[in-house]
Amino acid sequence: MTRIVSHETAATTDACGPVALLGSPHARLYPLALGEAEIAGGLWAERREVNRRRLLPAAVAHLEQAGNFDNLRAAAGERSAPFRGPVFMDSDVYKWLEAVGWELGRRVDPELARQADEAIALVADAQEDDGYLNSYYQVARPGERFSNLAHDHELYCAGHLIQAAIAHSRARHDDRLLEIAERFVEHIDEVFRIAGRPGTPGHPEIETALVELYRLTGRRRHLQLAQYFIDQRGHRLLGPGHHGASYFQDHVPVREAREVTGHAVRALYLAAGVTDVYLETGEAALIDALRAQWADMVGGKAYLTGGLGAHHQDEAFGDRYELPPDRCYGETCAAIASIMWNWRMLLATGEGAFADLLERTLYNAFLVGLSCDGDGFAYVNPLQVREGHRDPVERGARRQPWYWVACCPPNVMRLLASLEHYLATADEHGLQLHQYASGRVASERVNGGPVGLEIETEYPWQGRIAVRVTETPEDAWELALRIPAWSARTGLTVNGVPEPVEVRSGYVTVRRTWRPGDQVILALDMTPRVITPHPRIDAIRGCVALERGPLVYCIEQADHTSEVRVDDLRLDAAEPVSEYPLDDPVHGTVALRAAGVHAPADADPGVWPYAEAGAATNGHGTHNEPAPMSLIAIPYAFWGNRAQGPMRVWIPRAE
Amino acid sequence: MTRIVSHETAATTDACGPVALLGSPHARLYPLALGEAEIAGGLWAERREVNRRRLLPAAVAHLEQAGNFDNLRAAAGERSAPFRGPVFMDSDVYKWLEAVGWELGRRVDPELARQADEAIALVADAQEDDGYLNSYYQVARPGERFSNLAHDHELYCAGHLIQAAIAHSRARHDDRLLEIAERFVEHIDEVFRIAGRPGTPGHPEIETALVELYRLTGRRRHLQLAQYFIDQRGHRLLGPGHHGASYFQDHVPVREAREVTGHAVRALYLAAGVTDVYLETGEAALIDALRAQWADMVGGKAYLTGGLGAHHQDEAFGDRYELPPDRCYGETCAAIASIMWNWRMLLATGEGAFADLLERTLYNAFLVGLSCDGDGFAYVNPLQVREGHRDPVERGARRQPWYWVACCPPNVMRLLASLEHYLATADEHGLQLHQYASGRVASERVNGGPVGLEIETEYPWQGRIAVRVTETPEDAWELALRIPAWSARTGLTVNGVPEPVEVRSGYVTVRRTWRPGDQVILALDMTPRVITPHPRIDAIRGCVALERGPLVYCIEQADHTSEVRVDDLRLDAAEPVSEYPLDDPVHGTVALRAAGVHAPADADPGVWPYAEAGAATNGHGTHNEPAPMSLIAIPYAFWGNRAQGPMRVWIPRAE
Repeated sequence: MTRIVSHETAATTDACGPVALLGSPHARLYPLALGEAEIAGGLWAERREVNRRRLLPAAVAHLEQAGNFDNLRAAAGERSAPFRGPVFMDSDVYKWLEAVGWELGRRVDPELARQADEAIALVADAQEDDGYLNSYYQVARPGERFSNLAHDHELYCAGHLIQAAIAHSRARHDDRLLEIAERFVEHIDEVFRIAGRPGTPGHPEIETALVELYRLTGRRRHLQLAQYFIDQRGHRLLGPGHHGASYFQDHVPVREAREVTGHAVRALYLAAGVTDVYLETGEAALIDALRAQWADMVGGKAYLTGGLGAHHQDEAFGDRYELPPDRCYGETCAAIASIMWNWRMLLATGEGAFADLLERTLYNAFLVGLSCDGDGFAYVNPLQVREGHRDPVERGARRQPWYWVACCPPNVMRLLASLEHYLATADEHGLQLHQYASGRVASERVNGGPVGLEIETEYPWQGRIAVRVTETPEDAWELALRIPAWSARTGLTVNGVPEPVEVRSGYVTVRRTWRPGDQVILALDMTPRVITPHPRIDAIRGCVALERGPLVYCIEQADHTSEVRVDDLRLDAAEPVSEYPLDDPVHGTVALRAAGVHAPADADPGVWPYAEAGAATNGHGTHNEPAPMSLIAIPYAFWGNRAQGPMRVWIPRAE
Repeated sequence: MTRIVSHETAATTDACGPVALLGSPHARLYPLALGEAEIAGGLWAERREVNRRRLLPAAVAHLEQAGNFDNLRAAAGERSAPFRGPVFMDSDVYKWLEAVGWELGRRVDPELARQADEAIALVADAQEDDGYLNSYYQVARPGERFSNLAHDHELYCAGHLIQAAIAHSRARHDDRLLEIAERFVEHIDEVFRIAGRPGTPGHPEIETALVELYRLTGRRRHLQLAQYFIDQRGHRLLGPGHHGASYFQDHVPVREAREVTGHAVRALYLAAGVTDVYLETGEAALIDALRAQWADMVGGKAYLTGGLGAHHQDEAFGDRYELPPDRCYGETCAAIASIMWNWRMLLATGEGAFADLLERTLYNAFLVGLSCDGDGFAYVNPLQVREGHRDPVERGARRQPWYWVACCPPNVMRLLASLEHYLATADEHGLQLHQYASGRVASERVNGGPVGLEIETEYPWQGRIAVRVTETPEDAWELALRIPAWSARTGLTVNGVPEPVEVRSGYVTVRRTWRPGDQVILALDMTPRVITPHPRIDAIRGCVALERGPLVYCIEQADHTSEVRVDDLRLDAAEPVSEYPLDDPVHGTVALRAAGVHAPADADPGVWPYAEAGAATNGHGTHNEPAPMSLIAIPYAFWGNRAQGPMRVWIPRAE
């Protein structure tokens, strides 16, 4: 690849989505330009419509009510009132603004545009003359800027400001936020890199944002600042905090880190930023460290859903194989951060394993974070909820309209608003489809001329994906289709003629001279699957889970009669699992039916729940005769939408 | 029972230990007077010697270094310096003082007495003229007394002051601390109960202390103040805090609480205090609620070790059956609080189940909290530590010399210093032995005259307990011996003649006309036991544990070669478990040997640890052939004393 351009002289990629790589010398795949991918129907089109119609407008009211806007007004001197909320309140405004930016780039919406413009004007008013901008320090702690990098999130908020600015610049061709962001970044650059002041953000985010700002503006100092913060990390500049230096990923230099540790969202945003730096610099030590960390995460610190973070206490990765389903933290933001990182790793390597994990995360750990009606967001996403679960409102298992720490809701919004960005890429050989949704994909960049495709599918409910060529250059090019690792028997035809399915690094590639009207039909294997865990994952020993296509399933009380206790269901893994339609909670949902038993183990208060093996009275409560029972499983992402109640992904095997 | 005396007129029980009940109308059993029970040898005598020789003197240096004494000096106006440490620093001084009080009551120690007297003088100097005493508010927040009952622990510290004062009054006949405590209590009583000001402590502790102060002084206002705080609880006066009102047990009135919820130490200290109020008032609603809470705890919220608290985040009880062995919190203080509560329930009911749980907690969840050499205290006590465990210093699995939040170390000291209090009781029918240790037990209170017993045993290593009568009245009386529920086949002889073992409510009772020299031999069944968990305790499905006598066992790396990975050991529960002696880490320890296999499941970074059932390549890493292996298990309480490394109580069954 020789697409290197001099970033110092020209910005080349201003029409792209969240990640633009045309000028990045070490990319293997290139995201499409804005407008080149479109989601026209199906599950994600529906979720995006909910985002547009409900989430984005409702967020304005929440940001007003929670005090986010008032904090900025106070910083702007428009009102005098104490700062409200946690120190990173500004970031919620920026994430919402980013979402609105992407959304307005696709469709005109005067009311949303008016709200965004008001917010942008407010941000502009709040900015200090020297570029500094952070309402918490401006209002609550004037004169103490950058005095507590470990905990006070100024650089984190700046990162989200940059990302919002990029969205408005690229999607709306509106550079007002960009000017604000660059002024702030220049101030930060002077305070830290240029002055040689030691420091790195307690909560990474600005790193990936700075690299993207470099891609947008071509100004190398932004890349250098990202590198500066990354190089400063791992030298315990942040102190031990409450949870040790590994909480901030500050216990070991970035290039030496071989494990994912600490606060999951921090670790993953950092990894995304380091990947971005690699994409620009090609430094082998960075990609080596990233690959090791990814392997550590995937090999023993990820939930079946793609969810990440086993600890409530520090919102952190646990030890390897420490993956409790009940106390799974699996923060929605961690899923989003994982999608961001995996996308960048895919772009850097072209390897389908990253797109596979991105898909798993998208359809499970991320999708579960938003209620079907759009009125509630999950912060924490357990894989099991017991009968009688005590559910604290904040960070419990129940979706809430908003949060005191409201990082997740606007994060969901910005990912949904930019989701088409993650569907496909192009390179000089052709076009790659990574995620499947009905819609259109085009590229100007394919060897020889413009390409256009139309895609029709009922994915994830059905495995048939029909790709029709609508525009093509004369010369041959390659269409690469991702074959998920879970698809055991995959079918492929071109114009009705079966093609061999040779999967290389997760993709099947069809190279030919295409003609408009050519049709490729991919048939992924949607046979329900019974999944077993690695024997070292102690918390789910003796259990199985159900999957179909990209979806992980769960059983919940709503599909079983009130006499059935979900906690006492057992699955017979030897019997076949069948499909059946369920219009509830989401139209078109394919549910699963499995054979099993209901083995009530009565809860006896006061009876010690441990007994001698084989003892006549085993102290384990009254065991009734197990009754044969059909278990109904729905996609995990949709649990808790009809009623709250017991739920589990991992189901004990019937003996 | 008709031992009611008028508390308003006379204190009757000043020669007792931590709990004195001679004037308590609703007690079933009565603790012995100070000096009537003595531990002369064996495991606990050794632990107490470590407490006396190492822990208590070392604590003085820690309290000096951490700033506890300096805070009191600042409150006294002797120095001017900012407050150091968490808000409850005074309580550590009081707990240490309590321990020293009990210890000095037994043995002369001029240096320890000098240190105690210095500390008492310092506490006296720090007290305000109106009786108020809390160095945090005096130094850091003057003028804001009692402004944050939810979090600032003034009443909690007062509770520990009272308990220290009681120890010095009863054991040393030194009432200096008692005068200080009563002045402070009178101030608190005026501010709250007499003024009718709503309020209840965020951290219970003062309730049980106030009832004991009433027992010592006979002043009913102290009992009334305890009742006031208990009655105020459960009306959400404390606000939601970070973890909801149930964290403080403030979500439901005490008499309506049917579950143990929230912060475990708070819940258990509160329960102890409520039991104390019941012992004085006999209010049925209190004992009903306590029994329901105890049943809830025992039936699904207690670890095999007696450890309590499944959550790190809020140091709290989890849902019923949520008992992860790896993230077990099991705070040492929770074990101590549970011992306090169970002791009071035993005194209120005479039922052996409470003494059984007390024993289990003492030998496992409590004993594990102190290193064999006495140089380290555990705060958190997991039942499993994996290979590669990341262990933060604070609240990790490793014992530390001291803590920033140093509640546990001096709590261990005060329990060890007063341990003989928990061995035996008396009532008008006779004498009851609850815990077995070599030593002497006597009582003046048995029907007809003084009784004296000498006990010889190698418990907990051997099950033989020899009780020799050294003094007895002429009339017949009952000797009751607790038969732990785990003892399947118990033998009993009197003067060599076998007696039937009829266990009633956990005790076998021998009623006869005793003569000096009579000897009772109790033989408890020390056969090693293989234990299985209730099927709803998901986190340990498919596992077994080993017990022998009162001890829970674990396997750890130190007893296996370096090629053996503890995480991959499996136990064959069908094979017999044998004993063998192990002088390391504690002389005389009986270890266990069980048959099993080593089934290495290689950890493959980057390989997804979930695979389709029965798939040819199951993605679970390389499975080597399981190799037959002897598993060596040591008492859980002694793990981590030779080397840090993997450990587990619950061992997967070999298939």
